[in-house]
Order: sequence, then structure tokens, then C-alpha cells
Amino acid sequence: MSTHPLPTDALLRRFSDIVGERYALADPADQEPYLTEWRRLYHGRAPLVLRPGSVEEVSRILALASETGTPVVPQSGNTGLVGGQVPDDSGTEIVVSLSRLDRVRDVDADGFTMTVEAGVILERIQAEADAVDRLFPLSLASEGSCQIGGNISSNAGGTGVLAYGNTRDLVLGLEVVLPTGEIWNGLRRLRKDNTGYDLKHLFIGAEGTLGIVTAAVLKLVPKPAAREVAVAAVATPREAIALFDRVRKVAGSSVVAFELMARRGLEFVLAHAEGSRDPLSEEHPWYVLIEIVSGRSRDEARAHLEEALGGALEDGIVPDAVIAESLDQAAALWRLRHMMSEVQLHEGGSIKHDVSVPIAAIPAFIEEATRAVLEVVPGARPVPFGHLGDGNLHFNISQPIGADKAAYLARWEEVNAAVHAVVTNHGGSISAEHGIGRLKRDLLPTVRSPIEVDMMKRVKAAFDPKGIMNPGRVLAG
Amino acid sequence: MSTHPLPTDALLRRFSDIVGERYALADPADQEPYLTEWRRLYHGRAPLVLRPGSVEEVSRILALASETGTPVVPQSGNTGLVGGQVPDDSGTEIVVSLSRLDRVRDVDADGFTMTVEAGVILERIQAEADAVDRLFPLSLASEGSCQIGGNISSNAGGTGVLAYGNTRDLVLGLEVVLPTGEIWNGLRRLRKDNTGYDLKHLFIGAEGTLGIVTAAVLKLVPKPAAREVAVAAVATPREAIALFDRVRKVAGSSVVAFELMARRGLEFVLAHAEGSRDPLSEEHPWYVLIEIVSGRSRDEARAHLEEALGGALEDGIVPDAVIAESLDQAAALWRLRHMMSEVQLHEGGSIKHDVSVPIAAIPAFIEEATRAVLEVVPGARPVPFGHLGDGNLHFNISQPIGADKAAYLARWEEVNAAVHAVVTNHGGSISAEHGIGRLKRDLLPTVRSPIEVDMMKRVKAAFDPKGIMNPGRVLAG
Repeated sequence: MSTHPLPTDALLRRFSDIVGERYALADPADQEPYLTEWRRLYHGRAPLVLRPGSVEEVSRILALASETGTPVVPQSGNTGLVGGQVPDDSGTEIVVSLSRLDRVRDVDADGFTMTVEAGVILERIQAEADAVDRLFPLSLASEGSCQIGGNISSNAGGTGVLAYGNTRDLVLGLEVVLPTGEIWNGLRRLRKDNTGYDLKHLFIGAEGTLGIVTAAVLKLVPKPAAREVAVAAVATPREAIALFDRVRKVAGSSVVAFELMARRGLEFVLAHAEGSRDPLSEEHPWYVLIEIVSGRSRDEARAHLEEALGGALEDGIVPDAVIAESLDQAAALWRLRHMMSEVQLHEGGSIKHDVSVPIAAIPAFIEEATRAVLEVVPGARPVPFGHLGDGNLHFNISQPIGADKAAYLARWEEVNAAVHAVVTNHGGSISAEHGIGRLKRDLLPTVRSPIEVDMMKRVKAAFDPKGIMNPGRVLAG
Repeated sequence: MSTHPLPTDALLRRFSDIVGERYALADPADQEPYLTEWRRLYHGRAPLVLRPGSVEEVSRILALASETGTPVVPQSGNTGLVGGQVPDDSGTEIVVSLSRLDRVRDVDADGFTMTVEAGVILERIQAEADAVDRLFPLSLASEGSCQIGGNISSNAGGTGVLAYGNTRDLVLGLEVVLPTGEIWNGLRRLRKDNTGYDLKHLFIGAEGTLGIVTAAVLKLVPKPAAREVAVAAVATPREAIALFDRVRKVAGSSVVAFELMARRGLEFVLAHAEGSRDPLSEEHPWYVLIEIVSGRSRDEARAHLEEALGGALEDGIVPDAVIAESLDQAAALWRLRHMMSEVQLHEGGSIKHDVSVPIAAIPAFIEEATRAVLEVVPGARPVPFGHLGDGNLHFNISQPIGADKAAYLARWEEVNAAVHAVVTNHGGSISAEHGIGRLKRDLLPTVRSPIEVDMMKRVKAAFDPKGIMNPGRVLAG
């Protein structure tokens, strides 16, 4: 928790004056939406929530914060999952909401770029791209409310990573207000630029600890004409990888999703999600969901799927598969995958992990992590699923049948430790998509070498020597 | 030039002892290949050229350099074009050649990664990937001799950028020896990893000024089954962009090259490159060369080309086009593009630029830069060509017919200034691929804001407080 002194009324007045009375929220009721995140895991207090209406106002806020050593917590859509965007309980941290910086500054269809401010909601960016026959491929469960500033600061992943990369790969330029209040205009639109250090990558994924991203130039891609979806059965994750290899060989970067699902997860969905149907006539231990796009036609996407699956069927890698015959069928197949997390609720407590390993290590990881978890909690039921094509698994563990939910969930950290040890053994990551924030801050030094943590601290000290930017997130203060 | 004191014999002995007599080159004849770059634009002196055989030796060299304040110039294949990799004339800078760190540590076909040491030649990496049915898509004119450490340190571009990105986009993890001698093992193989700051991007493109890259995990991609090449005529660069849009729409990221060529450049090739033929029956002011790959078949790549070109022919965007009917024809078409720089030799002096602008700004850039150059040197003959798909042009200017070559070349900086002003107006880059090094170091503050230069200096000071790493490159000392 922040140990900064409580700001004086006079200082708060100076902060309020920058944005004007209306946008300086001091009333707890007005503040509430900014102090709690949606799962209510984190709730804090703030002397002020500031809602600046321009980059210059953000600059003046940070200049004053620097001058007075006042800690600042930047926030955009408030959908983060690791407690990075809500203030702590100290009542010393001022929240700076970027939601009023919501202009789309420029859409350049020919140049495949869009320039947006930090507070623009992701869904709107997708729509603006669509309107000029382009695709902005970042897509997340929270896309209706998350804002691009937060997506950039957390280097969001989501469902488009396999073909299009993480948020980092979709950013060409940034505008950032540094902790000193200086405005860095790095809003370049270039695909190639080797003039000195590439500073934007410092701020992407820094979770607001090095400055406040106020605007970005985003990369757009051609909009596909068609999408085809299939579900294929495989005997083990090893065959899933062999199939991934074939599908990519045929369709290259037109493979936009390659998702792994265990039978147990499918059974949970079939049991608890109304209207869901087993996709194949017989039961199989593992499934993959594949989506392929084409710039030309459904026929082409389908031909790609049929060629890859046909070969795999012949060679015995895939015992059975189904290709969606309609958009409804495609949606039904996707729904099996999308419901997989939610339905675990009906099976009692679930201990969750957001991990990644090298793709080739996935079979060994699943085997070893399952064994490790069962040693800690005999009878626990792992439900591994996720983005096989990215090496990113949501390795969630449902409680043993009939176990006490609270007693099971009390073992969260113990189970995490067992799984993370296997992750680390395989050179993996304990936070593939969600970041570090406050939730995993004290785990960071357990998975990164002292040299690497020290390098991060050097960067932090170079840009935020007073430690005012989102203190205690990512790095211990 | 470095103003460090000349190292004493005792100090040189300490450096030599780290690598052993055989690999500590003090004899000028032995040193020569490390002191000159291939065009002989840069030639320097060094008290020692060290050829360490392990990461630990690199670490000990930098620890000693830090302790004693000795400047160090890292070098791999010595193919850089901006003077970053050769020592200056002071005789104080020790060259550290990475060429003995030439092991391919690991090839992981399933995981689409390869782990290599800094001194591995690019061509060998391509071959190792090919041997396991993968593609490492970085491809450069110097690929037979450049080494991956230098490619990474200069964030090399080349001909595969449109589909596969710059070197930066092909690196998953790094091993770096910091100026203190500390070894950072960041050799991760993950597609998704949000655990703290992404430090590897600091070192990629830093031109050896923040540490020495000793190894890297590279990203491999599926190997295409077929390639198809076409040349299409267009009336102006604006139509070239419209065509680019159509081709990408049809073939997405299977478009691996989209190169623009002016008629004048083609005429130079036809006049001076033996065996070259006009690709179309009539003359046209502009041409594009397109290459499309397919993971499945030539038929598919050809269908993509025909669909995009067919529509463009119907709509009057493209008056004429030819698709290569054989590998020989494809090579002949590519040769027209590849010879374009070389043949300028036969037309007298040529003043060169490696610039990028947003793709949509290319037509305006060419028009305005041409006008600006002609104001400086009436009668000069611009030969714009290059990677339209990346916004990267080699805007080379041949001298006026009959002009004095030396007098023309004496105006190099004046012409550069005129072109760079137009580049800057369009938010472009004066060094799209080649970096800053020594050649453009003093231009950097003219194209980057004081805040941005200051941010770079903060990074430099955080990692290299003693200023021993490749001093005077990228940033003034």
C-alpha cells in the first residue's frame, strides 16, 4: 500500500483546477465506478478522480504530481484483471481517468492506420475500421467496454493473436505523457523506421508505470471476405500440434484460431450450457477448434480446411471432424469453446491459471501440471483449454466431486505454485495475457532473474525517478 | 572521435588473457578485415580485436571494459552501412567480434523457433529452417555474410518485411551481455508473455550501444509451397496504391512483395543490364512487381494474382500486366528490380536516400521530393523505387545528363536536406532500414524532438552509465 502522505486540501484544489470542478470527482458516490473493478476483487479509495479532457490537462496533472510527489493511478476502461487500474486503500492515490480522451483523430484506409485517443472503446475502433473495409484484429471478451489505452498498457492478447499478434504488434506509434508532464509525440505511422531506440515498446505493456499513453497509431489489416470454422477430434495434445502444423502449412497466416479443448471441458459445457450439442457422433479425449479466413471466398477457406483435415484424417491424426455448414453452426461450435470457462461455476470451485509455454512443450506441460495438481489435491479435475496456436492455456482446475468449495479454494496459492513450477521448468510465462499489476507483483521476482528485475527497475528509475506512476504495480516500490 | 585515453599495455594484456593470444588480434594485418567496411567508407584503428569464444568471455571483456572505462565496438558480419560496427580513428576502441559465437543452439520445428548465437550467418539460419520445412523470412542482399547479431542490433529490414515484419518482429527472446558484464538470459520462446517490461525491444535496433546481443530465439514461419511473380503497369503511384489495396484484399498476408519502379529506372536497367527485356509491349510511366506465395499450390498463388490483376485491368487501374510463366521468367522480372540500384553507376553520380513515409503519402512524397531536388539541381534525374508495401523508398537521384560527377556528388548533403525536409513533412523516417550509426548521428536531433532524444539518453545512461558501449554511435557522446 502507498505510504505517501495524504494530499492537503490546497493541493487537491490545484489538481481540481486543472480539469475544472465538473471533472474532479471527490464525492464517494461519483467516484465509485472508478474505485472498484467488475469482479469486486479490488476496491480502493482516492482523494480525487480526475477526468482530463485533453492531453495538455494530462500533462499538467503529471507535472503537478511530479512536483509534489503525489501518486497517480491511470485508468481507461477499468476492465483489467490484475488490480493495476484501481487505487489502493491508502486514500493517497489520485485516479486519472482517460475516458474523456475519446476522439478518433484519423482513419487512413490507404495507409492501413488509425489514430485514436486512449479513451476510445475497442469496439468502436473495430467498427471504424470495418466502415472503411479494414479489420482491426484485436478482439477481447471485454471489447464493449475496454479502452485502447488500457489495451496498450497491458499489451492485451485475445482471440486474434495467432494471425495478427498481440496489441504490441498492432501499434505503430504512441503519444505518451511522461511522469514529468512532458509530452512525447511518437505518433508515427511507419512500417520501417530505424532512427534510434524504439521507445514505444517501453510503454506498451508497462501497465501505466512509466507514463500515461494518451493516443496511438494503430495498424489495420485487410478485412477477410469469409471465415470457416471446424472442430476436429484428436487423441492427445501431441496430435493437436501435428494438426496445427498441417493447417498452417496449407493456410499460412490465414489460420486465425487454433483452440485446444479437453473432453472434460466439453462435458461441462454439454451438461450446463443449454442448447449445446456434442459436435461429433462419438466421444474423443481432445478437440481443436479451427478458424480460417480468406480474402477471396468461403470456397477458398473451405478448401484450405478440407485439404488440411483430409490429409490428417487419411494419416490417422484426426479420427473425426466437422466443418460448419452455416454461420449458425459456426457460432454453435465457437460457443462450445467460449462457454468453457463460465460453466465451471456449476462444478464447484475453480482455480485458474493464465499461462504460456513454447507450443512444442504443451503436451508435456499438460501432463506434468496435471500430475502436480493431483499431488496437491487428489481428485481435482483439470480442464485445460485455450489458444494452442499461441502456446497460451487457461489451465483451470475444478474441485474434486463432492469436495467443500471454500476448503478447495483456500488452496489457490498452493495449486498456483505447483502449476507455475511446471510453467517455469518449460521456460513459460505465469501471465500470458493479463499482466502483473498488483495480483502477481510479488510473484515476478520468483519467475524473473535478479538481473532482469534490476533492469526493469533501472528503466523505471530513468523515467519515473519520483515513483509517482502507478506505484507498487508490476514492481515493488 | 573517442576521447578516451589510449589503453596501457598492461590493460591490453588483461583483455588478451580473457580470450587467449590466438584470438586477441594486435597485428594490423590480422586486424584489417575488422577495421574497414566493405565499401571502404569507414576505416578505423583499434588497439585490439578480440574474438571471444563464449558468452562468458564476452561477459569478462565487458566487465573489464566497465571497470577501466575502455570503449568497446561490437561487430558481427561487418556489413552495416552506417559506420556503426567499425572503430574510429582514435585507436582507443577495442573491437569485439562475435563471429566465433556461431552455434545453432536449438531448432524447434514444432514450436516454430530456432535459438542461435550472434555470429551465425543469416544464410545458414535460412538453410537450417528450410531443412525442417520452415522459413526464416529475413532476407537481405548481404545474407551470405551478415550475422544475426548485427541483424538484430540494426533491426534489419530487407525483402520479406511486408509479409513477415522487420527483424524485431522475428525475435522472441534474447541473451545480452550488459555493459557491466552481467549476462541477461531472456531466451524465451513464448508468443504471449506479459510479465513486466519487454526488455528485448530495447536492444533490438540499439546498434550495440546498450549491450552485446550474444544469442536469440528466432520465430520461424510455415514454408510456402509456391511463389508467383507479376509485373503490372500503372499510370501513377496513386494507382499503385489502389492496386496494392486490391492485391492485399485478395491474398492478405500472402503478398510477400509489392515493389514500385519508375520508368526511368527500368530504362537504365534496359540500357545497362545485359539480357534484360522490357516486360510489357508498350511503355508505361510506372510499374509494380508483385510476389504472392501459397502454402498449397502454384494454382492458388496464380488465382490470387489473376483475380486481383483481372479486376484492376477491368477497372482501368492497370493498363497491362504480365505474370511469369516459369521460374526463369520470375527471376528475369525480379532482376529488373534488383539491378535498379547498380545500373545507376552507368548514368554518372547518384545521391541516395533510404526513407519511409506512410504508404498513403507516397504519391505526394515522390512529387514533392522530385520538385525539391530539381530546385536544388535542375536536370537531376530521380529514380524512385522500392518497397511500396512498407512505405520504404530508395529515392536515388542520378546526375543531370552531361554534368560533372564530382561537382554533382559535392551537393550530396544539400540534396539530402531537401529530400529529408519532405520526408519530415510527411511524418517519415530518414533511415528506414539502415540505422543511424555514425553516418546519420548528427541528423538524429534534426528529425527527433528534444524530448525523444532525451528519453534515448536516459535509456543509454540507465544501461551504460560509463558510456563504454559503441560510444558516439546513434547518440552523440
